[in-house]
Amino acid sequence: MLYIRIRLIKSLSMNFSINTSIEILERTPNTLEAMLQGIDEEWTANNEGPETWSVYDIVGHLIHGEITDWIPRADIILSDNPHKAFTPFNRFAQFDDSKGKSLKVLLDEFKVLRKKNIEHLKSKNITATALELKGIHPAFGEVTLAQLLSTWVVHDLTHIKRIVVYMAAQYAGNVGPWKAYLSILQK
Amino acid sequence: MLYIRIRLIKSLSMNFSINTSIEILERTPNTLEAMLQGIDEEWTANNEGPETWSVYDIVGHLIHGEITDWIPRADIILSDNPHKAFTPFNRFAQFDDSKGKSLKVLLDEFKVLRKKNIEHLKSKNITATALELKGIHPAFGEVTLAQLLSTWVVHDLTHIKRIVVYMAAQYAGNVGPWKAYLSILQK
Repeated sequence: MLYIRIRLIKSLSMNFSINTSIEILERTPNTLEAMLQGIDEEWTANNEGPETWSVYDIVGHLIHGEITDWIPRADIILSDNPHKAFTPFNRFAQFDDSKGKSLKVLLDEFKVLRKKNIEHLKSKNITATALELKGIHPAFGEVTLAQLLSTWVVHDLTHIKRIVVYMAAQYAGNVGPWKAYLSILQK
Repeated sequence: MLYIRIRLIKSLSMNFSINTSIEILERTPNTLEAMLQGIDEEWTANNEGPETWSVYDIVGHLIHGEITDWIPRADIILSDNPHKAFTPFNRFAQFDDSKGKSLKVLLDEFKVLRKKNIEHLKSKNITATALELKGIHPAFGEVTLAQLLSTWVVHDLTHIKRIVVYMAAQYAGNVGPWKAYLSILQK
């Protein structure tokens, strides 16, 4: 007799919605503040050498995204203007923009910008039809508004992940044999 | 003439200290609350099948650690009792312990327990000498108090990472071509 073992692996998969997306987007500034505000600079100011980012740089990068990326691109998609090409995003702008600012200032700035952007998003009353409207990404070509907004959500989560991975790496030398159990320290 | 290019890759590396460790440990409950409180259950209740954990399960696991792992093990190391073997940690206790509790209840429970444990840790006035005292881990054998406390910190960061990786996975099907840019979605 033949037994077949069925692996009951479900795939985590949610449908996109504006409301569930906003649940993440509106929490990110408070998450970063809870995690980082008032923490010793040793945790946040160091990077791993040229072309790598510190926690401080990541917060600057998120600010630049609020100003030049997500909402400006959504507005291009939603506008009546037939020109639908996005401006390429500058992944290094924060190195100039953040100069002289404390992490506290950046966290506050991010919070204000994100709040304004969520209000802007809500004010658009985006319909299911509008979610399928398209813009032109500099590398990918056509992308939909739903894809852009989903990416905004996942981008937030990506950078929360990077922040905790960097901070964990700072303590990699201190955990002794436990390193074997801590997947966050395996590179 | 020979030029040698030096790669300026620094290693992220902080020395262990009780104070910098507490900076992370005391923030984790607020970080989780900022990230998860009031969020739709769709983000937090699902797992990827048998033997995988949901976000909800992770919070239960952190609670179990507060009760049976970190501080009880530190107390074994610091006590005058010559018996230094740790009790093995039950990684599945949360499936019974959390039953019937909402995520909000678990987040509040974790916050109260963590606060009490940090107060307990501070009350011990742990010296540099005490940090080198040892306990016996069921798998690794001798481990120091500094290694245990460092692992507590990295363990928090590991689970914040897992939570955002799970949540990002929920939206993997919605980002379209951006998937290529989002390392958090590569398994």
